[in-house]
Order: sequence, then C-alpha cells, then structure tokens
Amino acid sequence: MRLFFDPNINASLQTFILSEEESKHIIRVLRMKTNDKLVVLNGKGASFTCEIKEYHSKKCELRILKVDQDLPLDYSIHIAIGPTKQMDRMEWFIEKATELGITEISLIACKNQERTKLKIDRLLKKAVSAMKQSQRTFLPKINDIVDLKSFVKSNPNGLIAHCRDEDKHTFHQDFSKTNCPILIGPEGDFTKEEIELALNNGYKAITLGENRLRTETAGLYACMFAKTLIE
Amino acid sequence: MRLFFDPNINASLQTFILSEEESKHIIRVLRMKTNDKLVVLNGKGASFTCEIKEYHSKKCELRILKVDQDLPLDYSIHIAIGPTKQMDRMEWFIEKATELGITEISLIACKNQERTKLKIDRLLKKAVSAMKQSQRTFLPKINDIVDLKSFVKSNPNGLIAHCRDEDKHTFHQDFSKTNCPILIGPEGDFTKEEIELALNNGYKAITLGENRLRTETAGLYACMFAKTLIE
Repeated sequence: MRLFFDPNINASLQTFILSEEESKHIIRVLRMKTNDKLVVLNGKGASFTCEIKEYHSKKCELRILKVDQDLPLDYSIHIAIGPTKQMDRMEWFIEKATELGITEISLIACKNQERTKLKIDRLLKKAVSAMKQSQRTFLPKINDIVDLKSFVKSNPNGLIAHCRDEDKHTFHQDFSKTNCPILIGPEGDFTKEEIELALNNGYKAITLGENRLRTETAGLYACMFAKTLIE
Repeated sequence: MRLFFDPNINASLQTFILSEEESKHIIRVLRMKTNDKLVVLNGKGASFTCEIKEYHSKKCELRILKVDQDLPLDYSIHIAIGPTKQMDRMEWFIEKATELGITEISLIACKNQERTKLKIDRLLKKAVSAMKQSQRTFLPKINDIVDLKSFVKSNPNGLIAHCRDEDKHTFHQDFSKTNCPILIGPEGDFTKEEIELALNNGYKAITLGENRLRTETAGLYACMFAKTLIE
C-alpha cells in the first residue's frame, strides 16, 4: 500500500485530515478516490492504515482503520557533520543515512568550512522520502546548525573522526550503540583546537582508514560501520 | 602536489607526453609553466613525480623525475550491479566506491531492469576523479555491461544480495577478501530464475539487513561492509 507521512497523526483519533501537501499529492497526482486505502507513517514507529473518507485536494479526510506501533529502536546512530559546500552532497548523505537507519543528524559549524547556513526543510524532505522508500517507520531527528563548542558540551563522550596525523583508534574499538555521537570533520577538516575541545569533552579520536574521504563519504561510512556493528 | 592521470605512463620512460585532455587542463585551467612539478598516476599503483619540460595545450611534455610503486593490493572488492534508471545514481556509486577502495565494478543486465545500455566513459571519469581526490593510486576496473548468465559463468562462487523471502546468510558469514564477486540486484530485484542460476554457479544468498535499500545504496553498503572486514 502507498505510504504517506504526517507527524501529527496519532492513535487517539478516529479520523484525520492530511496536510495540504500530501492531500494534493493523493488527489492531483495519484488520483485516489473515496474508500481507497493507504498507510500514514508518523515517523515515530507507528503505521496507520486508513481509507479516504472525503477527498479534497487541500484537506483530504481519512478514516483510521488500524494502528501498528513498532517497538522503540534499541540503538542510536547520531552523526554530527559540517555541511558541505554543495548542498546535493548533504542531501544524498541524508538520503542514504536514512535508508540505513540513522537515528539523529546534527549539523555543526566549524572553523574550516564555507557553508554555515542551510535549509533544514529540504533535508527533512529527503529524509521523509528515504524513510518511505526503505519502508522504515522511524524518521531521523535532524538538528539545525550549531557551533561545534555548543554541540560537544551538550553531547559529550562520542567519537571524532579527523585526518590529522595523531594517535587514533579504529571505529570498532570505541563505538557504542547508545549515546555515542560521531563527529565528522568539514571539508577543511577540524582545527587542532577543535579536536582538543572534543577530547576535553570525553571524545575519542578515531580513524576511518588511510585514505582521504570526502566529508559526506566519511559521514556515510561511519553510519554504515555503526550499522554493521549493531546488527 | 597536483595529481593527474594517464594509464600510458610507465617506468621505462624518461619523458612523457600527456593526453590532450590533461594537457589542456594543465595549461588552460591551471596555467602551469615549464619546470612546474606535478604527479601523474597510472592507476596501477605507480606515482610519477614529473616536471613540465615543454608546455603545450594539446601535448604537454613531462620529464619524469621519480617513480614510486605501491605494493599490489592484497584484497579484492568486486561488485556486480544492475545499472539504475537514473545515471547520476550510478555515478555517485562509482565515486563513493572508488573513494573507499573498490577494485572492480561489473555492470550486469538483468530481467527486471529498465536500463541495459550506458556510457562507460562517464563512469570511468568519475572513478579517475575520485581516485585523485582520495589520493589512491589504484583505479578500479570497470567492466562494460554483460548479461547475468555470462557474468556468473565467468565469475563463479560469490555472494548474491536479493530481497526475496528465502534462507539467507549475513554478509560477514560468507565474504572472502579474494575472488568473491558480490551481485547486487537491479531496481526490480533479481527474478527467482536469476537467483537459482547464481546459486547453481556456487553463489551464496546473503541479506544486507531487513530494510529495502535502493540499488546503489545496497551496492555501496556491500562495498563498505567488505572494507570493514578487510581492514
């Protein structure tokens, strides 16, 4: 059955009015009719099987027939990454990481990076579409950009992947499947001071291998590596 | 130093004339001059430190100063994949897989797939650029499209990742770091007959996790998984 997304649908309701965007898609693009069935995800593990009660291209009303709630995830994969200059590289990182089950993405502002602003909405759309495509029921949390200092203070004790020539552990030596944010350097890498700041907040330095990876490749590799250790 | 690529440079030469494409880039874009130094990779593990002997925008002549030859790789990661409908998805697969050290990519024609032709040249260019970017010295081999039957007959005893509900092993149970081609299904997945064909040629069926991954995500995930097992 076709999947839709609305974070406001909840199990206490019998009927629900879909957002304008999804309503338009259902009526104008898919040309669905009254009594057609569909599934709405809330991004928090619940799938609502519904049928169209009243079709309207701006506020399509659904009758909720059944609710399935998945168990909460028993792991977290939280990647904090400096946005790349080219937005499409960030977008594909979000798409692929969502397909693979990332749970949280934080955007950070570092010294050696050109982009310090970006539109969270576009990234969120990519995540929603990847969630549907991969038939997941949990949508990753995407946090708007904050500076590295604030990030490591409120999210201590993680891993920091950088390219500087220093003592580093391998990923699987130190990764833990809960509460272990992973910092991925921006296109100009972290500065020495930024690395020290992280280490002073309980971070461990790790290597992702000998070769120089692009920022978004490093982010996805860390996500995939975490996934292989969780499963 | 700046990296360039030419598969024809070799260690028996004292001078070398670069290809028209690289010559043009060196002279017209980078505006390099006589005696400027650069490195030419041959994609087979050798790095040639050179200086410009005579600059010419179509046939730049180099004097070879030094040759470094890396040891042959002690592993292979060979992914055989059905090309996606959208070419850019294949291109990023090639880019990321090259950054991560894939050694061979084979394109296969399967029953449930829309695209059966593609331009190898564009993919090769992506690979060359990713090789330079990640400072690797080996270029992956990219094989033009063949049908699945020919592929499994000439490359037996690998792994086949598919989405059908059958008995499957996990990746790390069966991956071997040499001579273990990994078949990734096309966008419409393999047919039952295609899976049987592979199994009859010594392939083992594997799963890449419970969720449905896009073809190019599955290919990259397999490549990254292999990399974590090799290192």
